Amino acid sequence: MTAHPKMLADAIRALSMDAVQAANSGHPGMPMGMADVATVLFTEVLKYDPQDPDWADRDRFVLSAGHGSMLIYSLLHLTGYAHPTIEELCGFRQLGSPCAGHPENFMLKGVECTTGPLGQGFAMAAGMAIAERHLNAVFGDDLVDHRTWVIAGDGCLMEGINHEAVGLAGHLKLGRLNVLWDDNRITIDGGTDLSTSEDIPARYAASGWHVAECDGHDFDAIRKALAEAQADPRPSLVRCRTIIGKGAPNKQGTSATHGSPLGADEVAAARRELDWSYPPFEIRDEVRDTWAEAGRRGTEARRAWAGRLDAHSDAADFHRRMAGELPADIGIKAHVDALIAAPQKIATRKASELALEAINAALPETVGGSADLTGSNNTKTKAMTPLTADDYAGRYIYYGIREFGMGAAMNGMALHGGVIPYGGTFLVFSDYCRPAIRLSALQNARAIYVMTHDSIGLGEDGPTHQPVEHVMSLRLIPNLAVFRPADAVETAECWELALKRRDGPSVLALTRQNLRQVRTEAAGENLSARGAYRLRAAKAERRVILIATGSEVEIALDTADRLEAKGIGADVVSMPSWELFAQQAAAWRNDVLPDLPPEKLLRVSIEAGTTLGWERHTMVKGLRFGLDRFGASAPAEDLFKHFGLTADAIAPQIEAALKGDQ
Amino acid sequence: MTAHPKMLADAIRALSMDAVQAANSGHPGMPMGMADVATVLFTEVLKYDPQDPDWADRDRFVLSAGHGSMLIYSLLHLTGYAHPTIEELCGFRQLGSPCAGHPENFMLKGVECTTGPLGQGFAMAAGMAIAERHLNAVFGDDLVDHRTWVIAGDGCLMEGINHEAVGLAGHLKLGRLNVLWDDNRITIDGGTDLSTSEDIPARYAASGWHVAECDGHDFDAIRKALAEAQADPRPSLVRCRTIIGKGAPNKQGTSATHGSPLGADEVAAARRELDWSYPPFEIRDEVRDTWAEAGRRGTEARRAWAGRLDAHSDAADFHRRMAGELPADIGIKAHVDALIAAPQKIATRKASELALEAINAALPETVGGSADLTGSNNTKTKAMTPLTADDYAGRYIYYGIREFGMGAAMNGMALHGGVIPYGGTFLVFSDYCRPAIRLSALQNARAIYVMTHDSIGLGEDGPTHQPVEHVMSLRLIPNLAVFRPADAVETAECWELALKRRDGPSVLALTRQNLRQVRTEAAGENLSARGAYRLRAAKAERRVILIATGSEVEIALDTADRLEAKGIGADVVSMPSWELFAQQAAAWRNDVLPDLPPEKLLRVSIEAGTTLGWERHTMVKGLRFGLDRFGASAPAEDLFKHFGLTADAIAPQIEAALKGDQ
Repeated sequence: MTAHPKMLADAIRALSMDAVQAANSGHPGMPMGMADVATVLFTEVLKYDPQDPDWADRDRFVLSAGHGSMLIYSLLHLTGYAHPTIEELCGFRQLGSPCAGHPENFMLKGVECTTGPLGQGFAMAAGMAIAERHLNAVFGDDLVDHRTWVIAGDGCLMEGINHEAVGLAGHLKLGRLNVLWDDNRITIDGGTDLSTSEDIPARYAASGWHVAECDGHDFDAIRKALAEAQADPRPSLVRCRTIIGKGAPNKQGTSATHGSPLGADEVAAARRELDWSYPPFEIRDEVRDTWAEAGRRGTEARRAWAGRLDAHSDAADFHRRMAGELPADIGIKAHVDALIAAPQKIATRKASELALEAINAALPETVGGSADLTGSNNTKTKAMTPLTADDYAGRYIYYGIREFGMGAAMNGMALHGGVIPYGGTFLVFSDYCRPAIRLSALQNARAIYVMTHDSIGLGEDGPTHQPVEHVMSLRLIPNLAVFRPADAVETAECWELALKRRDGPSVLALTRQNLRQVRTEAAGENLSARGAYRLRAAKAERRVILIATGSEVEIALDTADRLEAKGIGADVVSMPSWELFAQQAAAWRNDVLPDLPPEKLLRVSIEAGTTLGWERHTMVKGLRFGLDRFGASAPAEDLFKHFGLTADAIAPQIEAALKGDQ
Repeated sequence: MTAHPKMLADAIRALSMDAVQAANSGHPGMPMGMADVATVLFTEVLKYDPQDPDWADRDRFVLSAGHGSMLIYSLLHLTGYAHPTIEELCGFRQLGSPCAGHPENFMLKGVECTTGPLGQGFAMAAGMAIAERHLNAVFGDDLVDHRTWVIAGDGCLMEGINHEAVGLAGHLKLGRLNVLWDDNRITIDGGTDLSTSEDIPARYAASGWHVAECDGHDFDAIRKALAEAQADPRPSLVRCRTIIGKGAPNKQGTSATHGSPLGADEVAAARRELDWSYPPFEIRDEVRDTWAEAGRRGTEARRAWAGRLDAHSDAADFHRRMAGELPADIGIKAHVDALIAAPQKIATRKASELALEAINAALPETVGGSADLTGSNNTKTKAMTPLTADDYAGRYIYYGIREFGMGAAMNGMALHGGVIPYGGTFLVFSDYCRPAIRLSALQNARAIYVMTHDSIGLGEDGPTHQPVEHVMSLRLIPNLAVFRPADAVETAECWELALKRRDGPSVLALTRQNLRQVRTEAAGENLSARGAYRLRAAKAERRVILIATGSEVEIALDTADRLEAKGIGADVVSMPSWELFAQQAAAWRNDVLPDLPPEKLLRVSIEAGTTLGWERHTMVKGLRFGLDRFGASAPAEDLFKHFGLTADAIAPQIEAALKGDQ
């Protein structure tokens, strides 16, 4: 006996209101409002197989309105995913349960990405849809032929990033992207009319989207709208007119259902309204069976697909790419050897381009791009052709002036799998995409941020464009690797590390200005992998350790020269990655930075940014040369002088400090 | 003899291309493309008086496409502002010249706000237009009756924040906001068709804007479009079809003119093309005189306005508010006295609301708001009514789910003057508006960010919503005051400090969870103004200093209790503001944190966020308790236990460290 969709949807409603009630925390309104739409999607439309949640050709489903997490937890449970179990659902929002307040991709299969920060799920979905079309162009319909579905709320649509995602998706004609908009006319503060008067369908149409509409509580209307969305070659917005908290007779349609438990009385009233007489977390067999059957819909298609893959000539490459494994040779070693043989005095942004020439030739899975700074970020290598609506096989994306949208799209691409995205902007605009960088880190997504013009060294553009606090502020984000290479060799090494970092994102902070190559001897290993290493040992008796990153390493070398000329021995340590240095064995760390008092061994940092944080490596009584104020507009050389970041300015201060300590 | 507008515009073109050429750096394309439009605006339409650049009722002009800075420098020079002088123009992009790479409001009168980070000028202009309508509603047409004009490029329109600003301006029907869109179909990477397919006028119309169009090189068409924009009650977008770099015969219309000098040959060719035979930086008398005359257009209106102000009954209050001065009593003292008399165990977000009840009653100039989290941020006090299109006199703005737009609008309001804006969101979403916070700091704008739910203490919403790195990363931004108060008294004190900080922005990091009041005795001064102070002195012989902020101060007190019980004396220091502590006299700093080695006096920090940075106060060999990873979803109390941030977990580790040092 098959349960009616209404009953299937009510199972979602009951689980959602009961879990929120049990946790005494959460958002019942969205799951209850979108239960009917989600039921149609998951029982009749979505391509997936709970027995193989990693099936490469599954449709991706993104709950962009992540606060409604009980919706996806209910769906995964009911359709037969191994998790969440009913016990895990009972533990909603408690320590140890995978049913976190917002859906976390690292806690549950079937959660394609972490959502909750509004607007980003939608924008990541655009990235997934890009990855799908790109891989389809590379591997063909037999292996890659799926859709990306999104449930988004008013918040997702009001956030600025939505404009960027909509613009990008419309421009790239991502017809496989279908967004179900929960049009409940309610936000936290009250009715949407408190804060917006926008004609949303007209806006989407203006960006090349198809718009369908339906009553989100009329199953036939929902089916029709979803069919229309799939048939249209443009990305689709399906406006689902819903009642938030539907089923809660006294609170539905109001913001009271959005972010708080309904309360015991209203839950009881909803049970009566829905004619749902079972205790919390109990689902009657007929409903459970019908859901389980729906969860088996995709099994046959998945098996057929597996057969096609086995027989496919590109199977090995497809497997490798979807597994996120790199080929044995990624092109870096030969490139570094060439640099050692013929040193280059170039900007590290240019060095990055040279490394990418080698990488992109060796790795078919890289997809590059820039937020309209291609010629400045040096992100496009010669053989790359644009990825466009006419040619999804291209590997370079002109993201436009959309830093945040680019970051989120990269997250979606990385999480989709099969591609390794990298994208460029100016380091100062890491602020614009910082919310996406944080999600890269939280989601363990291999997105690589190529951030050039990384200090006052960019010169004339002035303080709005000069990062000061950015390198340090990125170091604060957990699970983010921040690389600031000192020359062409370190840049190549850092690229290797970023690519091999399967479990998280990287930022490469690169210069606009030319730097001399400081690594001119073969090292036999990737020294940047150590995080920090002694680039040059003191010649005279060691009294000082100069620690620097990026463009300031050559200033440190020049400072050491001046000190040595006065008989003061100074090590120079290059520290391209704080995170990796922290992970080294104590023996390595103590060798590079011996634990001696400052009067024996003075530690000095030089980095053209904030000094706050550097105490960790210099000790409080060491010296820190940096910039604790905004920059200025002038040629780079003038600025380094103006702010005292030259060997001529620094060496005497070190000498004075040494004398003061004697 | 009056010069033709074409000649007036060509003066801008010549100055722009010559200054960029002299600097060998800059963006000639935009000023040359928009010279004709800007000429009509500044010679016929804009209300301003170079003799009194601070005239309160002047039109505000915002060059949102800030890279085209030579446009505004040329305009200010030609219309008769005291600066830039011709020498300063010659020093474009050089150290010491106020003609920085991008326009900086703190360097030149007539530059209403700092622009360059794309999209923000436009969004700040929306804030200025809000301030204008609000003050108009308060003070009437006689005193406040001006427009906000914007020149924006494709980049400004493509950025996500544009969607937020357009939505807010359309919803609030800001008819005094007129945006001149430099529609040159060129971005840095090439044609706009590389990255966008949007029908921009349709999008603006969908958000309630009026759209006019003109040939940006046809003076009559420009006049007509500007008149149309002014006549329409809606905010207006004027699409100015232009040729980027117009006048440079070989490069115009291409991205080659965007961000690089034209080159000597092309500059010479442009001189021939424009029939402009004068040497660089020389303007013929006829042109100079006509420009100067245009610059005197507003003098009479300004004088008439000054007369009306003198006669106005609210003149004193208007003067005070526009000068940014506070009334003598801002309501805080009585409020603190009441708290001392009857201590409150409340969340600091609630404490903030109580402080605001007092402040908003005392200060008519505060304009509050929230990005759709009013009930969570506690930003709306009882007497506040909404500022809406029907009632601009309201003092509370429902910003919608637009954190970045809110931040930029607050900057615009603060820079307009006459109001003190504050706005709320969750602290984790400071990332969403971080670019605006940075501009608040750079521009010396008194914008107050009320950021609640400031740690894992928010509980169940989980890692996407739990700030970990945010407090520290905000401390890195120069000229930003970050306050993390420990209880209701400190919250009131920090509000006072934020309000009195006329020259920069503040962030208040506030808890979701209740905190006991730790300040229960009258202090006779605002102790938070010290940045850090001894909240409780050791009873036993002092061996430890516990330094904490916000919600962790009560954990520090409990830890001290446990240590004292074992005969270990421990000071407890509350440190609500790192910035203010750094500004104290050495005597104060040394008294609070004496310079003794750890074996004599162990310094320990407790803050539920990243420990990187805390070495500054604990010394490297001190102890730091915090969170160097993402949080988790669970009730707050469980999380503090789980992450070891309890007195029970911390006290034994301090004891062990003391033993290890003995």
